[in-house]
Amino acid sequence: MPIVRYSSAGREEVPDELAVEEPLEIAIVHHARRRVAAITMRTPGRDGDLARGFLFTEGLLPAGFDLGDGAREQANSIEISWPDNLKLDLRPLDRHSYTSSSCGVCGKTSIEQVYQSLPFTESLRPWSVSVETLYLLPDRLRDAQQLFRRTGGIHAAGLFDTDGKLLHLAEDVGRHNALDKLIGNFYRLGALPLHGRVLVLSGRSSFELIQKAAMAGIGLVVSVGAPSSLAVELAEENGITLCGFCRPTSLNCYANPHRLIA
Amino acid sequence: MPIVRYSSAGREEVPDELAVEEPLEIAIVHHARRRVAAITMRTPGRDGDLARGFLFTEGLLPAGFDLGDGAREQANSIEISWPDNLKLDLRPLDRHSYTSSSCGVCGKTSIEQVYQSLPFTESLRPWSVSVETLYLLPDRLRDAQQLFRRTGGIHAAGLFDTDGKLLHLAEDVGRHNALDKLIGNFYRLGALPLHGRVLVLSGRSSFELIQKAAMAGIGLVVSVGAPSSLAVELAEENGITLCGFCRPTSLNCYANPHRLIA
Repeated sequence: MPIVRYSSAGREEVPDELAVEEPLEIAIVHHARRRVAAITMRTPGRDGDLARGFLFTEGLLPAGFDLGDGAREQANSIEISWPDNLKLDLRPLDRHSYTSSSCGVCGKTSIEQVYQSLPFTESLRPWSVSVETLYLLPDRLRDAQQLFRRTGGIHAAGLFDTDGKLLHLAEDVGRHNALDKLIGNFYRLGALPLHGRVLVLSGRSSFELIQKAAMAGIGLVVSVGAPSSLAVELAEENGITLCGFCRPTSLNCYANPHRLIA
Repeated sequence: MPIVRYSSAGREEVPDELAVEEPLEIAIVHHARRRVAAITMRTPGRDGDLARGFLFTEGLLPAGFDLGDGAREQANSIEISWPDNLKLDLRPLDRHSYTSSSCGVCGKTSIEQVYQSLPFTESLRPWSVSVETLYLLPDRLRDAQQLFRRTGGIHAAGLFDTDGKLLHLAEDVGRHNALDKLIGNFYRLGALPLHGRVLVLSGRSSFELIQKAAMAGIGLVVSVGAPSSLAVELAEENGITLCGFCRPTSLNCYANPHRLIA
């Protein structure tokens, strides 16, 4: 689209590319009844992965369940044919209402609720990674980001191995969507949990992002920006190594530094 | 909290401050019935403004309605005593499900729904602002951000006049919360709509943020980062001047540049 650019050189009309944002309806059809699980503002593309990742990390879809071809995709809608033999319980979507909590609304309650719903136990095999390797990952993530390069307006989630090799990348205007797409990809491949892998996030790390990482069994999260207090607490409680402010020569570790080799 | 910092200088334990993230329950008590309108992850503080801004921009609370002292605040919960003579309709919270839409889920539907729910008409008085003034605003916003300086992990929304003077600032781990706090402050003061003012956002601009700005009658939005496609379309349709990538010597204008003076 044409935009107007103002600078010391004056006013000029130049072409520009924008990160596309459109609503996606995630609907579930079960025993001939259609229900909308969510509407999210997302960047179109890989909607099947987004839906799988969302339904899995929200606790509706059990790990390792093959949905097969049961997803009907339209422009801004994806309809999941829920298997007849799989129970459908939409209550996890109410988790933000904490109605079941007896001790009121607090970060501790939130953390306990995540802990209770985790499908995988922590990796039994201890593993570690060199901080020198981690330093490089944000730049590698950005180099691989096609949409960011064109629009400057898009979040990314990347999964790396401990040698610093990029295994998978997902981009979206919403950072939670980028992570859902990434996790949904491995869900579809039957490759969860993601033990021994490093998740790199282009932005900051919040409670919600660490919750999704925990669901997928990810043990090490590196963000380019800062973490929130609740993200750190959740990582701490779930044995996740959480790093932030990752730069080419430094990073901060906020929880479980035992996996880092200086 | 103590963190571990890795750099070329080696490994050192240093103290650090984090942006606090905690859930907030926004509940409404109406005719002795208590209902949870939302749970949001936010930075504690100014919960009353956050609740007012949220309920107003989501279309539950009409403009200019004095809630008085009808808000009971606890640690992570705020209870709004809904006035008996004010109808309570929670349906706007379902707007993300677009159930009333006949043309399906698409950006155009989203934009029309916003347009139909706007409480204010556009400012009748034409006004403009110098781009040289706008260039300075992101730095002024950041200079005023107390929490960002300490944590590096927090979003801000700031309202400026056309001379570049900061009128109000709100900070939060969630960018939508920062904007709700800002709008809620002016709601409480009975000072909506915010005609002739400039809103500055520390991050990118999304559909949701422009929707909130439109609800408050804000006619010019400047973001430090990029806008999404739907943010631009929504701004275009609602007569909002939308700028992005604002730097000390340049910015891009994506919609309605007629208010800018080069």
